[in-house]
Amino acid sequence: MAVIVQKYGGTSVGSLSRIEAVAENIIATVRQGHQVVVVLSAMAGETNRLLAMAQQLDSEPASRELDMLLATGEQVSISLLAIALVKQGISAISLLAHQVGIKTDNRFNAARIENIATERLHQALAQEQVVIVAGFQGQDRDNNITTLGRGGSDTSAVALAVALKAAETQIFTDVDGVYSADPRIVDKAQRIGQLSFEAMLVMASLGAKVLQNRAVEYAFKHGMPIRVLSSFKPDQGTIILTQEQLLAETCLPTIISSIVHHQQEALVLIDDIDSVSVSEIFVVLGKENIETDMVTFNQVSPTKKQVSFTLARDMLSSMKNALKQITTCNKFGTIHTFDNVAKLSAIGIGINSHASITGTILSLLAAEEIDVKLISTSEIACSVVIDESELIKAVRLLHHKFGLDLSS
Amino acid sequence: MAVIVQKYGGTSVGSLSRIEAVAENIIATVRQGHQVVVVLSAMAGETNRLLAMAQQLDSEPASRELDMLLATGEQVSISLLAIALVKQGISAISLLAHQVGIKTDNRFNAARIENIATERLHQALAQEQVVIVAGFQGQDRDNNITTLGRGGSDTSAVALAVALKAAETQIFTDVDGVYSADPRIVDKAQRIGQLSFEAMLVMASLGAKVLQNRAVEYAFKHGMPIRVLSSFKPDQGTIILTQEQLLAETCLPTIISSIVHHQQEALVLIDDIDSVSVSEIFVVLGKENIETDMVTFNQVSPTKKQVSFTLARDMLSSMKNALKQITTCNKFGTIHTFDNVAKLSAIGIGINSHASITGTILSLLAAEEIDVKLISTSEIACSVVIDESELIKAVRLLHHKFGLDLSS
Repeated sequence: MAVIVQKYGGTSVGSLSRIEAVAENIIATVRQGHQVVVVLSAMAGETNRLLAMAQQLDSEPASRELDMLLATGEQVSISLLAIALVKQGISAISLLAHQVGIKTDNRFNAARIENIATERLHQALAQEQVVIVAGFQGQDRDNNITTLGRGGSDTSAVALAVALKAAETQIFTDVDGVYSADPRIVDKAQRIGQLSFEAMLVMASLGAKVLQNRAVEYAFKHGMPIRVLSSFKPDQGTIILTQEQLLAETCLPTIISSIVHHQQEALVLIDDIDSVSVSEIFVVLGKENIETDMVTFNQVSPTKKQVSFTLARDMLSSMKNALKQITTCNKFGTIHTFDNVAKLSAIGIGINSHASITGTILSLLAAEEIDVKLISTSEIACSVVIDESELIKAVRLLHHKFGLDLSS
Repeated sequence: MAVIVQKYGGTSVGSLSRIEAVAENIIATVRQGHQVVVVLSAMAGETNRLLAMAQQLDSEPASRELDMLLATGEQVSISLLAIALVKQGISAISLLAHQVGIKTDNRFNAARIENIATERLHQALAQEQVVIVAGFQGQDRDNNITTLGRGGSDTSAVALAVALKAAETQIFTDVDGVYSADPRIVDKAQRIGQLSFEAMLVMASLGAKVLQNRAVEYAFKHGMPIRVLSSFKPDQGTIILTQEQLLAETCLPTIISSIVHHQQEALVLIDDIDSVSVSEIFVVLGKENIETDMVTFNQVSPTKKQVSFTLARDMLSSMKNALKQITTCNKFGTIHTFDNVAKLSAIGIGINSHASITGTILSLLAAEEIDVKLISTSEIACSVVIDESELIKAVRLLHHKFGLDLSS
């Protein structure tokens, strides 16, 4: 009898009728012979409602007290689900972080799980109870309530699954899996059946928002399979596994598994710069918490070099201000900025061992006269920066050319 | 430096601006040099909102889970108040029952406090923090959340005050004290400055709803003074003390301190009954949970007796059904019922040592042609049953004649 950890997000428990539907889903899993541990988020909108009250009292509410406040959201949803299950004749118990023993550090609003006690959980499972645990929250060494930050319930679910040596973590959400591209842009986008943790992490960092990154990292570290499913329609969803697990399960996946994009980017090019100045730039930007991405550094003449990078478009003016302290020293040339660009990435395992992929992408885009301003490749992705106006066309083009379109 | 425990009810924390007003009130108490422990109820309406959700899922929600759900109401109000205090530069910390160590039995929805640990409280007070404790809730031996039932926050406050050996418990509510009669009926009703626990308990059982009875009993048992105050206007309120404390503080109080009434009563008279049948009646009514009050038992002839009692009017038909099993044995005569009566009581310490009070009441009512159907006296109250239609007239009459009217 395997332990399954199921996590339901805020939309999945957004109303009393949705909570009843989740109860049905859990009962079906129990009837399949599984021991079920459920992790819930707060009902959709509840965390924002509580936060708004706190911010009306203080624009920067005391962080310990904010966690005390926000943790009530999950307490409401878990007790309501337990009531709905008991009504259906299912033995169920809701547990808060301190009742389970989910210990975190004391960084309020962004705590990290340090340890999970399993005694209380095993006791309830042994009594054939469905155990419903409040996601998002923990307890520090002084018995204060902590929260894990936005999306923290995903991490709660994975950490509980690891502690209980569960068969898998099922994340129920309002999409039915991870797609080969954004279905709102590419109507032939298809759900990916299996995916590696590496690919999922790269996709997330490149713009695909399905799971909390920290949860994926935690599962990756412990080899805990994550399945992404819809709580609105029953299906197999997408399962995320280690490369070893994937290889054991299947034939090699196709080289390119998905096309991911990220809008609202800006591109910066700085001419005539030396290595020392480059390092100074990144020290200054780091101090100001301005995150950069896709950094490249090229030798353009025997004495001069050029650096380029992308960043979130709304950070552009902060970046210009930050660099002023260096420009006064006249250590580099012109700063060119492009504030109407987007990033497009093709994701696939072992992409770097197929050098031709980069060439294929460039030639496909060139044939459609889409100008590539920057390119960067990693083990698992090939990313290009293009004009945002050409993004949709480019996403559809690559999705089609790499054979990802749903066959109709 | 004295510890003061202040409890604010749901109306007092019913909105964010009310919470800010409560914060101001607490700051004023701190500035007077007191150590302050605050107990809060849930924001007005919140407990009902949560209960309604639970009842939509199950008309009789699982009791453990209902307590898990309802306890969030106080968690929200205490964290919001802490945020408001910190915003004003006051060091404050909110604590839940399990963080303080408020241990109860495991009767969900109606738990009783068994023990309160004071270590965490003293630690916070030593750090000059205002300590804000969630009322209404506790923790049983298995770390489950329990609640104390409606009005339970009053008991939380008194129990904390006793555990901390506080100077007094201040109950802030939407009235500014205990009155000599219901101010909605007697416009010259005046606030009672000092009152004994005995008088308060009798007044409560006879219809005056200001404090939870269990809280008054707990304070009485431990000699903990309770002050009833308005959170809307600053004043001295009413202080409730033991008779010993009262005697030490003041001259003897006036004999009659207040007039209390209770509507929706019914009166029952049973003729031709013997002692055995009387006991059978009360055994049967007890089994059916039908509470009776003002029981009298009179010898009306050498062989026959008459019994009379009052009960809540909505229990009348249940009572008649319950008695049918006995009437078939024909052990007593006619059952007369009066379903349009009310109970009126004059409250005063040592009322039984002033036999003339009963006479005075009867003659005052007779002079106004108000028919008294039943009379019963105790150490601290003289109660009469009259037609409900004459209640208001009678309350005003006695309030005036016993010299309780505000001098204008």
